[in-house]
Amino acid sequence: MFLRNQTRPIKINNIQVGGGAPVSIQSMTNTVTADAAATLAQIRELAALGCDIIRVAVPDEAAVQALPQIIAGSPIPVIADIHFDYRLALVAIRAGIHGIRINPGNIGDSERVRMVAEHAGNADIPIRVGANSGSLPDKFRSLPLASALVKSALEQCRMLEKFGFHNIKVSLKASEVTATVAAYEEFARHCDYPLHIGVTESGTPRNGIVKSAVGIGALLLRGLGDTIRVSLTAHPREEIAPALQILNAAGLRSAEPEIISCPTCGRTAINLIELAERVEQLIAEIKSAGKRVKLKKIAVMGCVVNGPGEARDADLGIAGGKEKVVLFERGKIIGTFTEADGFEKFRQLILHSCEPEND
Amino acid sequence: MFLRNQTRPIKINNIQVGGGAPVSIQSMTNTVTADAAATLAQIRELAALGCDIIRVAVPDEAAVQALPQIIAGSPIPVIADIHFDYRLALVAIRAGIHGIRINPGNIGDSERVRMVAEHAGNADIPIRVGANSGSLPDKFRSLPLASALVKSALEQCRMLEKFGFHNIKVSLKASEVTATVAAYEEFARHCDYPLHIGVTESGTPRNGIVKSAVGIGALLLRGLGDTIRVSLTAHPREEIAPALQILNAAGLRSAEPEIISCPTCGRTAINLIELAERVEQLIAEIKSAGKRVKLKKIAVMGCVVNGPGEARDADLGIAGGKEKVVLFERGKIIGTFTEADGFEKFRQLILHSCEPEND
Repeated sequence: MFLRNQTRPIKINNIQVGGGAPVSIQSMTNTVTADAAATLAQIRELAALGCDIIRVAVPDEAAVQALPQIIAGSPIPVIADIHFDYRLALVAIRAGIHGIRINPGNIGDSERVRMVAEHAGNADIPIRVGANSGSLPDKFRSLPLASALVKSALEQCRMLEKFGFHNIKVSLKASEVTATVAAYEEFARHCDYPLHIGVTESGTPRNGIVKSAVGIGALLLRGLGDTIRVSLTAHPREEIAPALQILNAAGLRSAEPEIISCPTCGRTAINLIELAERVEQLIAEIKSAGKRVKLKKIAVMGCVVNGPGEARDADLGIAGGKEKVVLFERGKIIGTFTEADGFEKFRQLILHSCEPEND
Repeated sequence: MFLRNQTRPIKINNIQVGGGAPVSIQSMTNTVTADAAATLAQIRELAALGCDIIRVAVPDEAAVQALPQIIAGSPIPVIADIHFDYRLALVAIRAGIHGIRINPGNIGDSERVRMVAEHAGNADIPIRVGANSGSLPDKFRSLPLASALVKSALEQCRMLEKFGFHNIKVSLKASEVTATVAAYEEFARHCDYPLHIGVTESGTPRNGIVKSAVGIGALLLRGLGDTIRVSLTAHPREEIAPALQILNAAGLRSAEPEIISCPTCGRTAINLIELAERVEQLIAEIKSAGKRVKLKKIAVMGCVVNGPGEARDADLGIAGGKEKVVLFERGKIIGTFTEADGFEKFRQLILHSCEPEND
């Protein structure tokens, strides 16, 4: 439906980012990194929910000490987030970290940058550099925000390129969605490094999910973005479902089955909201029992007359009317039932379609 | 930041749609329209939440009977949603409805279309026509979905234009976001009718909010869309907050104050999630007490060292560290406090900025 922007590929351990690889989901632990057991428990929880790559803060020597255990136990690649202290980067690399987030502009003189580039180069791990609207250098502050972000990020890239290092991923984050989108667009015209996209400081889930969905979604639909993070002021587990839904909406992951359901209106003669929620619940139960539903699309419609036709591309559908429901497959009605009987039959048909998850 | 596509303006009673007017928010009642009191109560609730234009289903004569009372009592313009029966359109127009949603292709012969166009023309009210992936004519089904939607909608427009009627608004809805976005883009290259945008059958709020945010947001950020509806399988009141958030994220409405807050990480030494939620709660309480907060941006940050600088564009901010918080205004620290004292001081500063809502 739309073309993805071609970026050069990098590898974060076993996960390729850019170069046409599937868009991956990132999050960041909020445990004290020095507490390896707590951090690993959180990483495992996030990985089970669908997180592909995890970042951990490495603020001090105690955090570095925990890295070998975290890296060894993590089911997904681990990136170290480092502010200012280049020595922490060097020891994190020595500990076997799969990627580094650091801005060379923040670590001091060029010799330190050279050392980080050399160590990361020898270990063959990528470095994410980036710009954040909250920490732009003064010299760029008079520019429009998007251009300032681009110039600042390019400057970070140049500092590493000077030492022959090109294993780079880039982020450009503003808390305004419009500036974020404009910045990534402008950057992609300059440079083919893979892009880590997200909207920064988007707030609590109440508002931050929509804000992130608009920003990340708009970028993905322009073909931009190789890895995403939905940043929320919330437990990181709350970041994963919206990230999956955004990829889904952008047509970059398929949630199977997709459940479509129509809005209610003054014509609806059944409790459609309750019915749609029962169907979602049913699918969730089947999935958590380790089974995989083989239907691509399931429809829950509020009208027995128009529903089957409107949802004719659904593999299975249920449409509710006054005191009855009809079930249909690809637009063809297969039976009319009372609501209780119809739902049970529907459940059986879905279960019948299943196979164990680890097939 | 981005250019809005120029459409021709139409008016739905006192609300302009298109032609550079602010993007309006629509929803649809799910009461039985014939029950005027229940329908009006729901319209008032939705209007208070921020709904600009309401649509009601008009499936029968009983619904039409209720329209004069609904129209007279509604604080926002009312659109009648009509399927198939052109006579219901004629009587709804006679009852003083502010707009009609009907597809001329569904109401029978050309003479009926002529009558609807003539009556709507005389009453000077717009008609929304459109295409929905669930009800495309067979002749377009072999086309790619986006093109089929465009051709189908253009055909509906032509049927009205034949009778000199151009007071038209258009929707093109698919349950796939990518097809929806592609369809509106293609349509806008053909035609300057104002666009009603949304993603159809997006499901319950759990998934439908993100799906709508990606689709509607991506369109708005391309400059497309004059009025929006977030369709959810839920009570219509749940559609309004996400709609406002989407407009907000796209830079088309300003929620004041905007509250930004950073994600948590292994460096955060304060319960940032709880703090951000307390701030949101505080703002909600102030607003529901009828006061308007005059600050444009409020920041809630997890780091006393970097927070004030990163959020230097915030009018007021609170940053939390180990057993203390700092307050800051536009990047300048104005004091260091215990958490309880700091929050109280913060509350006082916000209250001090307020004016009564009806100033």
